[in-house]
This record gives sequence, C-alpha cells and structure tokens, in this order.
Amino acid sequence: MNDFQQEWVAVDWGTTHFRVWRMSRADVIEGREASCGLLALQKDQFESTLVNHLHGWPVNTPVLMSGMVGSRQGWQEAPYLFLPVSLREVAVGAVKVQTKELNRKVHILPGVACQDQHRPDVMRGEETQLLGLGAGVEDWAGVICLPGTHSKWVMVENGVVNSFDTYLTGELFSILRQHSILRHDLETEEFNAEHPAFVNGVEVGLSESTPLLTSLFRVRARSLLIDRDPLANAAFLSGRLLGEEVRSAIKNLPKMEKIHLVGGSSLTKLYAKALTLAEREVQQHSGDDLVRLGLTAAWRFLYS
Amino acid sequence: MNDFQQEWVAVDWGTTHFRVWRMSRADVIEGREASCGLLALQKDQFESTLVNHLHGWPVNTPVLMSGMVGSRQGWQEAPYLFLPVSLREVAVGAVKVQTKELNRKVHILPGVACQDQHRPDVMRGEETQLLGLGAGVEDWAGVICLPGTHSKWVMVENGVVNSFDTYLTGELFSILRQHSILRHDLETEEFNAEHPAFVNGVEVGLSESTPLLTSLFRVRARSLLIDRDPLANAAFLSGRLLGEEVRSAIKNLPKMEKIHLVGGSSLTKLYAKALTLAEREVQQHSGDDLVRLGLTAAWRFLYS
Repeated sequence: MNDFQQEWVAVDWGTTHFRVWRMSRADVIEGREASCGLLALQKDQFESTLVNHLHGWPVNTPVLMSGMVGSRQGWQEAPYLFLPVSLREVAVGAVKVQTKELNRKVHILPGVACQDQHRPDVMRGEETQLLGLGAGVEDWAGVICLPGTHSKWVMVENGVVNSFDTYLTGELFSILRQHSILRHDLETEEFNAEHPAFVNGVEVGLSESTPLLTSLFRVRARSLLIDRDPLANAAFLSGRLLGEEVRSAIKNLPKMEKIHLVGGSSLTKLYAKALTLAEREVQQHSGDDLVRLGLTAAWRFLYS
Repeated sequence: MNDFQQEWVAVDWGTTHFRVWRMSRADVIEGREASCGLLALQKDQFESTLVNHLHGWPVNTPVLMSGMVGSRQGWQEAPYLFLPVSLREVAVGAVKVQTKELNRKVHILPGVACQDQHRPDVMRGEETQLLGLGAGVEDWAGVICLPGTHSKWVMVENGVVNSFDTYLTGELFSILRQHSILRHDLETEEFNAEHPAFVNGVEVGLSESTPLLTSLFRVRARSLLIDRDPLANAAFLSGRLLGEEVRSAIKNLPKMEKIHLVGGSSLTKLYAKALTLAEREVQQHSGDDLVRLGLTAAWRFLYS
C-alpha cells in the first residue's frame, strides 16, 4: 500500500444525518457533519452535497459510504444482501458509484435483508455498525440491540448475521405523541431513565399484565381521571413501548446472554434502564464510533 | 303520563356525528342527522345547533342526549359514573342542561369510568348502547364488543357494568396509515373481510407468533422485498391489529361465551370475521338502533 492509499474518506449518510471523516488508515484527521440527510435531498443533489463537504481535503482519496444513501431513494442503490450474511460479505459487497464531477473511487456498502416471506426485514447502516463491533474478531458472536426510530435486534454467530427483527417502537412513540388523541396528554420535553413513570411503564410492558392497545388508551384515561402530569404520561408511554419491545426481543434468549447495546443518545440510556429492569446484562457501545470502525474495517477489505 | 309527555326528542351527539329523532314513546316519527359533532363546534354553539335541528317540531317536548356532548369539551359536563354502574343508574344519572333560549327540559346521560389507578378507562355514548341492549331485561348479562376508533370490550352482569377495556386499535391503524413510514405502502381504499391478507393478518395477530411492533415494520419490509400490493398491505395491517385486540380481549373469556358485537359499519364486519377466525360465537346488533333504544329506556326511567 502506498502513502496515497493511506488517506480515505468515510461517510455515514442516513435518513436525517450526514457525517464525513477525513481518515488516515484507522485514524480520524478531521470530521464534519450536517443535517443534509436523505429526506432533505433530491436524487441529483447527493454528489454536489458530498463535493461541498470534501472542500479543502485531498482530491483523489477514495470515499466509502454507508446508510440510506444506498437505498432506492438515495444516490445509487446498493442492493440488499440476503441472510445469512457474513460481515466480510458486507464489506466486499460495496457497490461502485457512478460519479459526474468527482474524480475518485466512491463506494456504498450494501444493506442487509431477510427475504423469508414470513419474516421480511431490512437494515441499512446498522450492518456497518455490526461490522465495527466484530472488527478484528473472525468468529465474533453476540446479540445486539440497536435503538432508533426503527430499533433492530440482531443475532450474530461466527461473524455471520443469522437473523434480525425490527421494532417500530420509536416511530410509534413519535406519531402517538404528535398525531393521536394522546397528544393532549404528553409533554414533549425529555425525561430521564430514572423517572418513576418510565420505570413503571417498562414494568407494565415486561409483565404482560395489560395489552399494549389498552395501555395506549389508558394514558388518555389516566389523564382525564387521575390527572397525571404530561411529562409523567410521556415517560410512562415511552417505558410501556420499550418494555413491550424488550419483553418480545428477549423472550427466547438465554437469561445469561449479554446484550450489546449500540447508541449514544438519550434513547440508549432508556434502553439500558429497560434491559436492567429485565435483569439482563448490558454492554454499551458508541454508535458513532462503531460506524467509523465498520467503515474502516470495510476499507481494509477493499483497499489493503 | 299525559299525551304531551309521549313526545320527546332523542339525540346522539358524538365526536364527529349528530343524530336527532323526534320520538313518540318508543317510536321514531322523524330522524335527522348532520356532521356537526363535537370537533366541529365551539362551546357556545351547541344550543343553537340543536335549535336549528329541531326546526318545525313541537316546541316543548323534553330532549334527552347522549355522547361526547356531555364531555368537558361539550355543551355541559355530565360527570362520569364510576364502576360498578347499573344500567338503571346511567338513566337516572342524567344531568339537567342549563339552556338560554330553549324552553324545554334538556338532559344529558353521564359517561361511565373506571377510576382504578391501574386500570383507568372512560366511555361516553357506549353506555347508552349498553342500556339499549339490556333494555327490558332486569338481570341482563353478556360480553359486548363495540368497535370504533377506540373499541370497547364490556362485561355486564345482572344489569351492572362491572369492567371494561378500551383498545386504541382503530386510531392506531389510522395514524399509521397517515403519518408513519408505512403510509407509502398502504392503499386508502376499502377492502372486505374476506380479503386473504386481512385473514392472514388476523391469524398472525391471534397466534402471538410475531410481536406487534415487529409486524408493523414488516409491512414496510414486505413492500420493499416482496412487492405486495398496497391494498393487501392495508388489509394485512388491519387484520394484524384486530387480531391482536381480539386475542387480548378473549384471553380470559370462557370459550363458550357468546360475544355481542355492536355496530353496523364495515368495521363491524371485520370484527365479526376476526371473531369467527378466533372460533367465537357472535351476535350482531345495530349500533344506531341500540343508541335509540338506550335513550328510550332512559326516557322511560326519567319521564314515566
């Protein structure tokens, strides 16, 4: 490998966020970020957006990208790889992007999908974090929870993603808060993971004592009859939904199985608390670091 | 009772609908309806709205109303009666309305609530349908399912409402279809209860094989990977949610217990199908008729 190839550019380009790092091998020289995610761009604006954010950096270094930029609505589709998928296959499956003005190699990592018609599912971006988590360990194995608008629970064995499930938890909380009859009863400010109403919500969700669809309406009824404050209502609802997700997700997991929790946001703290209440051991990882580590692992496969 | 008292006015005034009947004892002389429900009115517009719709009818007959018109946001609050509540108590609990221009007796039936802090719940309007269902049978008993935006499952024993649960099913379907990422994958046209995707959704919901929060995202994944049509996706989602509700609601019911299904809309047909798939015996009742029968039963208590 010559000196030139030691420099490259890593890009994490999702639905709402854009982050780019000037890299020297595995080290960050400089990082930039912006809110120009997929939703903010037209199809023909991706290349110029990237060009703008590379300003002042070396002009011929290769670029490796991950996330929704490779979806059908993104810059160029990087078709899904179907389960089971090794983390090495994700790296090798990078798709070359047709550029107009950029005179460099640009690749996008593929997403991963399950095509079983009884269990269809998709991920884009999380596979890169998994790649980061297993980087350097050939036979990496573990259960990974990736919180988000659509949270993922993934089973990796021997460096291979065998199965995963997506939960609509985060988006459901958001649309209930914005668009349902509950919107009158929910505070939009943040609460923390120790809020008693959050803890109570998780416990109800873990216990299976009340159907989810009934719990949702009871937030409204509680507000009408018992006059709980809107912040407590929001905390309860969040806990109730997370408790439901965690109960379902750990149902078939051995009690001793440690859960790798990927994130860094306030949401991750809520998941950590919910998993602790479910008496599960948790190991937390920084989501930002894992994306970069995953892109770096893929870059090694591709360019070294 | 003199001849004058034989005429009265029944009003069913909900969140989105308004129906009024000129009655002679239990018989309808004339009916009118409009879309001036609670959501379409300011607090001071209820009386004039009613006056407009009584045009041409006798001027001194008493008026008996039911529904959201008696909520805090309605014309005048008719406070909830708390469980356990006999159907007779609902009738006797009618609240006299302060009128400005109307020179007649106007009453609103109270709603019913459960104040148990672990199980808070409210209904307004459905109690009148229950009154209609049990009218004339002192010790009426049964399990009643009332489909709607917020569907209710009610246990009546010996003419007394002992417990009930509300499910946010209908509203959840609606906000998922309008506001979630699934909106791209769902047709807004109607499907019928025999649609294979609806039946499949109910079966998944009844079986507990897939967590609800996972099923929701799979509608999206199925659309991306398997290319199911948007009408089938909507039918599946509807069935999945109804199946979830029915599974939860019948869990502790004896297998032989008949379920009284109150409605008349296309939604009721979907519930009837879901209950049949759950191998439950169903007896259907017209919701419109029951409101009027309930108001009539209450009128008898109040004026005879």
